[in-house]
Amino acid sequence: MDEFELIHRITPRSLFHREIEIGIGDDAAVYESKKGYQEIVCVDTMVDGVHFLSSHSTPADIGYKALAVNISDIAAMGGIPKFYLVSIAVPSGWRETDIEAMYEEMNKLAKLYQMDVIGGDTVSTHGQMVITVTVIGEVEKGKACLRSHARPGDIVFVTGELGSSAAGLSFLLGEQSAEDDRLVEHFIERHKRPVPRVKAGLICSRYQSVALNDISDGLASELNEIAEASRVSIDIYQDLIPRSSDLHKLRSEWEEWVLFGGEDFELVGTISSDQWERFDQECTSCGVPVYKIGRVSRSGEANVFYYRGQDRILLEKKGYNHFRQDR
Amino acid sequence: MDEFELIHRITPRSLFHREIEIGIGDDAAVYESKKGYQEIVCVDTMVDGVHFLSSHSTPADIGYKALAVNISDIAAMGGIPKFYLVSIAVPSGWRETDIEAMYEEMNKLAKLYQMDVIGGDTVSTHGQMVITVTVIGEVEKGKACLRSHARPGDIVFVTGELGSSAAGLSFLLGEQSAEDDRLVEHFIERHKRPVPRVKAGLICSRYQSVALNDISDGLASELNEIAEASRVSIDIYQDLIPRSSDLHKLRSEWEEWVLFGGEDFELVGTISSDQWERFDQECTSCGVPVYKIGRVSRSGEANVFYYRGQDRILLEKKGYNHFRQDR
Repeated sequence: MDEFELIHRITPRSLFHREIEIGIGDDAAVYESKKGYQEIVCVDTMVDGVHFLSSHSTPADIGYKALAVNISDIAAMGGIPKFYLVSIAVPSGWRETDIEAMYEEMNKLAKLYQMDVIGGDTVSTHGQMVITVTVIGEVEKGKACLRSHARPGDIVFVTGELGSSAAGLSFLLGEQSAEDDRLVEHFIERHKRPVPRVKAGLICSRYQSVALNDISDGLASELNEIAEASRVSIDIYQDLIPRSSDLHKLRSEWEEWVLFGGEDFELVGTISSDQWERFDQECTSCGVPVYKIGRVSRSGEANVFYYRGQDRILLEKKGYNHFRQDR
Repeated sequence: MDEFELIHRITPRSLFHREIEIGIGDDAAVYESKKGYQEIVCVDTMVDGVHFLSSHSTPADIGYKALAVNISDIAAMGGIPKFYLVSIAVPSGWRETDIEAMYEEMNKLAKLYQMDVIGGDTVSTHGQMVITVTVIGEVEKGKACLRSHARPGDIVFVTGELGSSAAGLSFLLGEQSAEDDRLVEHFIERHKRPVPRVKAGLICSRYQSVALNDISDGLASELNEIAEASRVSIDIYQDLIPRSSDLHKLRSEWEEWVLFGGEDFELVGTISSDQWERFDQECTSCGVPVYKIGRVSRSGEANVFYYRGQDRILLEKKGYNHFRQDR
């Protein structure tokens, strides 16, 4: 396909955000930011053979996830996503319809969050498919949920079941099998189609000093990042961490998935204990699940401890570190 | 190298822009935009074997150009670049020192424009090196230089010699040779190290209704984009287009380089004839070269005509269209 033709096809006919002066169709996009708000920006790259397998995922799946993981980063700041830009390096084996399906799925997801595509780049490659998405969002001034916000006494919470994405990946890779097709589908769906927790993040931004991360690299890694940025230690408890009731049936080492698997894109955060009850109620009334999984114990050393019955285990910052370990 | 370690190394110790609340080190960057300004954002991807050849360019060269072409897009809107984010997919053959050299060179270039790196992503790939840079800039509200601004009677101008980058590429590829090493170096430098015309763009933004593009895909392509967006026809003249006085010695088809070669990253624009003299003087006094190369003839059909002596040639929108023709 002609690049100009592609640009023409993906240019939206209407926009959610009227503050866009120029979207696609010039050297760069131009927009005005809202008074009283700060801008949020993030970028994530996914590579075929590393972050997904085009043999196991459709172009639509790939497009969905590339956008979703960036929306999730905005959510993890307590922000609202507004715009996105898509850069893809397309191998010669990809067909026009594949690229269209990918954009179409991103467009569908973006609509759910009232986001507009405002730019991008489409180039060819002799190597694997690489997709890079940039998302721009906004947050009320001073309300961003930073990793450095955790304080001793805070309650640690997550927004949904963990480990399911990793389980889904193991099904995809054929490392795992199960007789119940619906079960398999559930886990694969969690891996391929994570739902960014924008509403939960927005609620968090209305409370004082919430620390927040999205779980891309695994619970242990995300909690260690909060612990390091806030210089606190954190205790979490095995029996409090939400997971699918079927998870332990699949593999005896299911805890690996829960703690280090990553890619669940749930939020993990901390909030002061005196705000907890109100926060919990508000989340529940908004249909946002939230689970208390532990506490911030003390300031000083940045350690994350995992309590399994009588055992206390130091959780290291391992997880999906792409330089060390490819998937 | 460990990804966390890399993030630590590339995190700047000090920032030019104090409006950054969070740069590298959280899920996303958070910053405040300046009152009375609009935000500008663009993204460009470069792939080894398509946009550069790692056999002919150092990691520093690659980093330089990936950032420079995005700064150039901001300049082409009349904007000032502020922030950048870098996403790279790194093949296993690359060494730690290569990646560092790449970031170091981007850092050097960014310093010239007082830009801060505020995010990015570093992942591995089994394929070629792919680098995607996102740049965010700003422009005074309503002052962006849009492609749609050209009006009949406007003067068409460019900011520097054209065709040199394409000539440089042909030396790199061994399609061309010359005895004068300094000559060869000049052209290769123009290809590898284009200088974004930020100052020229900024001057343009102070004049009313300047249409502007940076020459990434070739003069013919950029002028066609202005013609289409503004629904005007444009006349340009062979003898007015600035080029190296050595260009015609290299190849009889040197006009191909000038008109379709691209990657010179000079600006091409239109400005009303009554502003031209003042604009020309201001550019000259600021050390910004500017050359009148033609006129906007009439509104209606979007055609670009090239006058070579008595001949009038319709210039088509060809150029570096990555889907059609790889380099």
